[in-house]
Amino acid sequence: MKKEVLEVLKKNKNNFISGEQLSNRLGVTRTSIWKQINILKEEGYKIESISRKGYKLIEEPDILSRDDLLIELQNNKLGNDIYYFKTIDSTNNYGKKLALDGALEGTIVLSDEQTGGRGRLGRAWVSPPGTSISMSIILRPTIYPNEAAKITEITAAAVANAISRVTKLKTGIKWPNDIIINSKKVCGILTEMSAEINSINYVIVGMGINVNINEFPDEINNVATSLKKELNMEISRKELVINIVNEFEKLYYDFINTGDLSKTVEICKEKSVILGKMIKIINRNEIIIAKAIDIDENGELIIKKDDGEIINIISGEISVRGINSYI
Amino acid sequence: MKKEVLEVLKKNKNNFISGEQLSNRLGVTRTSIWKQINILKEEGYKIESISRKGYKLIEEPDILSRDDLLIELQNNKLGNDIYYFKTIDSTNNYGKKLALDGALEGTIVLSDEQTGGRGRLGRAWVSPPGTSISMSIILRPTIYPNEAAKITEITAAAVANAISRVTKLKTGIKWPNDIIINSKKVCGILTEMSAEINSINYVIVGMGINVNINEFPDEINNVATSLKKELNMEISRKELVINIVNEFEKLYYDFINTGDLSKTVEICKEKSVILGKMIKIINRNEIIIAKAIDIDENGELIIKKDDGEIINIISGEISVRGINSYI
Repeated sequence: MKKEVLEVLKKNKNNFISGEQLSNRLGVTRTSIWKQINILKEEGYKIESISRKGYKLIEEPDILSRDDLLIELQNNKLGNDIYYFKTIDSTNNYGKKLALDGALEGTIVLSDEQTGGRGRLGRAWVSPPGTSISMSIILRPTIYPNEAAKITEITAAAVANAISRVTKLKTGIKWPNDIIINSKKVCGILTEMSAEINSINYVIVGMGINVNINEFPDEINNVATSLKKELNMEISRKELVINIVNEFEKLYYDFINTGDLSKTVEICKEKSVILGKMIKIINRNEIIIAKAIDIDENGELIIKKDDGEIINIISGEISVRGINSYI
Repeated sequence: MKKEVLEVLKKNKNNFISGEQLSNRLGVTRTSIWKQINILKEEGYKIESISRKGYKLIEEPDILSRDDLLIELQNNKLGNDIYYFKTIDSTNNYGKKLALDGALEGTIVLSDEQTGGRGRLGRAWVSPPGTSISMSIILRPTIYPNEAAKITEITAAAVANAISRVTKLKTGIKWPNDIIINSKKVCGILTEMSAEINSINYVIVGMGINVNINEFPDEINNVATSLKKELNMEISRKELVINIVNEFEKLYYDFINTGDLSKTVEICKEKSVILGKMIKIINRNEIIIAKAIDIDENGELIIKKDDGEIINIISGEISVRGINSYI
């Protein structure tokens, strides 16, 4: 009911709508409407109430409210089911549990705060409350397990595009899974899957974005940044989430429906901060120093080693002078 | 406590041990010993009790008792933690939940009956109570996700060897994941994993073995068999489980510790029922008719197509005249 009240208020934003109209339209009592309005106010929605005139939505808070996002994403393929937490250990972990219990493609898990957020290889990822986006999307693509890296590429392209659209900041992609602004990391992506040998049960793609974080701990301050730090103003997390879902959905279904990854690859190449540079690639115990020369049509990185050998790599931890993975 | 009582009885099988001895050795009261003996009797252990002489274990039931297996596998690397169910939907599903909660490598899930057992691609697998083995092993190998198929090969080799050792029956392997006796399927293997792009979180390898099943439904009777049907006698499921764990553990740690898959490949080649034959391979929507010519050092199948092209495949649904996948 709260969602329906909010939906009507949003459609009439900055205009009054009477309690009676709301009550008629939604088929519930005016007392019930009044209760929902109060809950919305508590959540931070600024709603003016004047007797005889009714209710007017003046301002929406920057919370990642489930109801609000369900309204905003109702015409999308993704985000028809949203789980929102004030705090959680890790949205990817929760997504895995949902997926194991049968959650459908497009289910989204969001949390205002993550207490046990993870980057790749189980590393910690800090997601303080109120200032970051911790989001995981459950996908059930009919692709082979060795294609899962493409989902990381799609996500990187989508997040970079969405950030640029919302903030006008120039975003870079440090292949395969980091978004960079002014040589510092603003977003990390963690793709995990459950698979049989030849088929994927589900993919969880998680992203942690530093949005309105003011300060970072000393040890990461020189490698991490936030949108607010770069822009000197707060950014609406809700607007960013909506834009990410929109961008992601375009690139993802392009790939799923036609097998075509070209738009994603185009964005990843254009925004790449490593192409043409000498990079260090760490994969388990192997370290390779090589020149990053291209990203191929499958999203794989093509590198040229010192001895002239040219090879493809599908993933790895990359560092390049001035731009390092952090934590 | 029940486990400790059983352990002493097993060590003194067919000999009497007095309640006082048991009580002293285990540091509990004789009443407490008596209670545990009664529970064991209820589970099916035949224990003679004669006053002044004490207790004598005469016969062990063919149940996949957790306590019993913990005793039998106490010197093994795998099986130090065992979950046993009278009935469960799927041991692989339960294994996934345990792994998500941090279960260690070697944790084993067993069920007397599976109500929602699955073969590959979500197909049903029948595991009636009392007559089959439904077992899943949780592994945490430090290998790449594209190597997970090797775990299937190791399991196939281990199960085929164990069945042959216990029953003296000739076992065949229908690459990659079926064990065959006299052209009929007696065991299926389902390997599932949770992974990041470049590293495995965990692998669950599940196996369903038709041990003492008397009859199969008509629709699978011509493609499925059980050890009892082939041998005309009952086989101890417990003995088989112990042998499988022993065989598996040898081949698995050979591979994990040294990267050497050669013993596994040797067994899979020697027991192969498809090498040298024309086979049909179905992968998603692709169907290939080709001759199976070899299994390479990575456990991949090498096939030769009609046009002479030779390719490697890592998995797929194989059928060969007279031997079909069932269900």
